[in-house]
Amino acid sequence: MAKGQNVSLSVIKRLPRYHRYLGELLKNSITRISSRELAELMNLTASQIRQDLNCFGGFGQQGYGYNVSALYSEIGGILGLEKHLTTILIGAGNLGRTIATHLEFETMGFKLVGAFDSNYQNIPPVRGLKVQSPDNLEKFCNENSPSIAILCIPKEGAKYISDRLIECGVKGFWNFSHFEFGINRSDIVVENVHLADSMMTLCYRVNELETEMELKSLE
Amino acid sequence: MAKGQNVSLSVIKRLPRYHRYLGELLKNSITRISSRELAELMNLTASQIRQDLNCFGGFGQQGYGYNVSALYSEIGGILGLEKHLTTILIGAGNLGRTIATHLEFETMGFKLVGAFDSNYQNIPPVRGLKVQSPDNLEKFCNENSPSIAILCIPKEGAKYISDRLIECGVKGFWNFSHFEFGINRSDIVVENVHLADSMMTLCYRVNELETEMELKSLE
Repeated sequence: MAKGQNVSLSVIKRLPRYHRYLGELLKNSITRISSRELAELMNLTASQIRQDLNCFGGFGQQGYGYNVSALYSEIGGILGLEKHLTTILIGAGNLGRTIATHLEFETMGFKLVGAFDSNYQNIPPVRGLKVQSPDNLEKFCNENSPSIAILCIPKEGAKYISDRLIECGVKGFWNFSHFEFGINRSDIVVENVHLADSMMTLCYRVNELETEMELKSLE
Repeated sequence: MAKGQNVSLSVIKRLPRYHRYLGELLKNSITRISSRELAELMNLTASQIRQDLNCFGGFGQQGYGYNVSALYSEIGGILGLEKHLTTILIGAGNLGRTIATHLEFETMGFKLVGAFDSNYQNIPPVRGLKVQSPDNLEKFCNENSPSIAILCIPKEGAKYISDRLIECGVKGFWNFSHFEFGINRSDIVVENVHLADSMMTLCYRVNELETEMELKSLE
């Protein structure tokens, strides 16, 4: 199946969710599912699902539905999960260590090959990798050509180190720092995870909800 | 200043970012800034900034710009950061502990008051709070009325525990589990942080970028 061209980011962002649900169906030995059933499970509409999957050529058969295992593999293939992009961790403090150990890297398309921290002398290995000095970055990248860097460092040092990483050929940043990359670069991709922003948004929405409920109770 | 009514979620989601940038300006003793300068700093347009802040009444003065400290406080007020919503942590494993210790709760509108984990007997306190058995949830909520729960548990137990939490009056969920809440509830708000989805999206985009670059190099 041909990989979709010019597929919108919102469709792409839904693919991991399909992958996750299909993986669980597989675990539960469900081999086939209709778009209606899948829609119900995922809180989407059946037509939304058909539309999304049609971006990549469509996989369903009328009257049969989707073959769960085939669709799971196809979506994994589209996401490139079997390619095991080489990845390095920048910042092996609490957050970095947790991110690196929490996620099942190998099943998600990444292979962690290096970890760096300015405090490298005082911290234990991460997933079996000895933590290195950031001074080694260029040499290491030269030898290992990592595609992706996970940034778990304070904002202050992030610009300097990300410039060096881009120079070394790193293409993707999973950015947990508060540093913001320029938005107009076509040579890198960035996924930001701004935990504090998400938390403050929740704070706003809960306050708003509580105010609404108070007002209602006065009516 | 009146709190904005019916402000779109996309504007609200930008407020924490304004707050973050203004906080840093303050740290650097910058007391006043024009919308043009702020725009440049934040990779937005000046008109976007004026439009966003006008949703809440506008704070700028023509020819003067924004008073950084006043705007910082105002936005903090809009976000409700001074209200210190009472918060509990559900799941005090690696991820939960890191989330709870990494973020400066008190400056971000939350106050952590309890931590729960089914493995409570074997894990050390989180931010000074003894980890409790989930059996205590109802009693604890009855006495402490937490507004927010941070869910850092596997998907399997998440529906059962979140139903109990909603029953106990919890209004907001910061959801790190793979469990998905129904989308049509008006009595709770949910902020999802699906780390694995973000990671797979990055994987897709890096693969796509690398393919594009290979194709270009062949031209």
